[in-house]
Amino acid sequence: MSDLSLVIGNKNYSSWSLRSWLAMKQFGLEFHEICIPLYTTESVSKISQYSPSGKVPVLLHGSLAIWDSLAICEYLAEEYPHLHWWPKDKSARAIARSISAEMHSGFQTLRQNMPMNCRAKLPGKGMAIGVQKDIDRITTIWQECRQKFGAGGDMLFGKFTIADAMFAPVVLRFVIYDVQLDDIARNYVETILKLPALQEWIKAAETEQEVIAAYEF
Amino acid sequence: MSDLSLVIGNKNYSSWSLRSWLAMKQFGLEFHEICIPLYTTESVSKISQYSPSGKVPVLLHGSLAIWDSLAICEYLAEEYPHLHWWPKDKSARAIARSISAEMHSGFQTLRQNMPMNCRAKLPGKGMAIGVQKDIDRITTIWQECRQKFGAGGDMLFGKFTIADAMFAPVVLRFVIYDVQLDDIARNYVETILKLPALQEWIKAAETEQEVIAAYEF
Ligand SMILES: N[C@@H](CCC(=O)N[C@@H](CS)C(=O)NCC(=O)O)C(=O)O
Ligand SMILES: N[C@@H](CCC(=O)N[C@@H](CS)C(=O)NCC(=O)O)C(=O)O
Repeated sequence: MSDLSLVIGNKNYSSWSLRSWLAMKQFGLEFHEICIPLYTTESVSKISQYSPSGKVPVLLHGSLAIWDSLAICEYLAEEYPHLHWWPKDKSARAIARSISAEMHSGFQTLRQNMPMNCRAKLPGKGMAIGVQKDIDRITTIWQECRQKFGAGGDMLFGKFTIADAMFAPVVLRFVIYDVQLDDIARNYVETILKLPALQEWIKAAETEQEVIAAYEF
Repeated sequence: MSDLSLVIGNKNYSSWSLRSWLAMKQFGLEFHEICIPLYTTESVSKISQYSPSGKVPVLLHGSLAIWDSLAICEYLAEEYPHLHWWPKDKSARAIARSISAEMHSGFQTLRQNMPMNCRAKLPGKGMAIGVQKDIDRITTIWQECRQKFGAGGDMLFGKFTIADAMFAPVVLRFVIYDVQLDDIARNYVETILKLPALQEWIKAAETEQEVIAAYEF
């Protein structure tokens, strides 16, 4: 029996939940899932039972609650160091942390205009002013990581790391909104999309019944 | 001679630069400073010489550039582990990372309506809708950290950690905008404000000549 529980939102919509969830699945951790549909009349009180910030994801480990996708990943990276959540090489690790933090605090224009919606197909939608600039920066990041650190695997730093988890919702957005991509970015999108854990997430999202109007076109 | 350089923006305005700079000073690291005034006609090209994201701060260590305040702190915490950048206790460290990540990605309403402006006195300004909610959440964080983990010092986790650096610009905002605070928060503000390194930053900010209109009332 695992003593880890992850509190997440709707799989269809909750991009931050996906980041922690995918990392934990990819590194083979067993954990309980506590799903709380977002933006219902009960969401705030239910989330607050677990989350001091009022947001998901939250990791429960014994009596400890750790909130925020990035803090959860750093915590697990320390708890299970043999799994190598970050690249082993020091320079690669510094860049992996830089791009993960850039994702964590940035790309608001893309995130607002192209909300994650796993079961939707919305080609051409969402291309508001500034979105292309975010897309270009993201594909530049992917290109540089693949070229400098990608040997030894298909992921940004070769093998799967926290950085791939941080960008997984962007991968889904590029598919949902059918964003035009260069070869390196398209290959990377296909690699991430094929991950069995991500497919499991998408399948579960498709069976959810809740609809959040603000995230629909 | 130090092989560390920190690229920062205007000391008067650049709250993210302050976070990394203050942490490095508090932990006694020697480093070169490269100051680039923000929002001038040359800012973008100058910042891009160092920063892949186009933002400051950026840490230069030999040939390595690490960007983003939080990634810089995590990098230095690994480089200089004997300095204990995060709390030693595992639970305290998990919470320190959670609140640092919450700061890193959140409190947009407060940040937008009460921009950091070290040399200004703007009592009563900036109190837009939603700002009080951010203030309340921050003072709750401070209260809980001080009460649960604050023994052994005046900082959030007793001794100074990255978490204090992450919240230092909020401390300045509370002073600049003369925000009403409970006793614990006011004591914490006074503690941080007295740090010689923070005083050094403020003094330097006062001598800067540049004015960024968007950050002035
Ligand atoms: N910085 C946080 C962001 C968390 C976040 O914004 N979560 C959203 C769902 S994806 C949420 O909980 N929204 C509910 C709300 O704000 O009421 C993280 O990385 O975990
Ligand atoms: N998430 C970044 C934020 C960095 C940031 O927004 N920096 C501002 C100055 S405080 C900047 O470089 N602005 C210039 C610009 O956006 O052109 C960090 O934590 O370092």
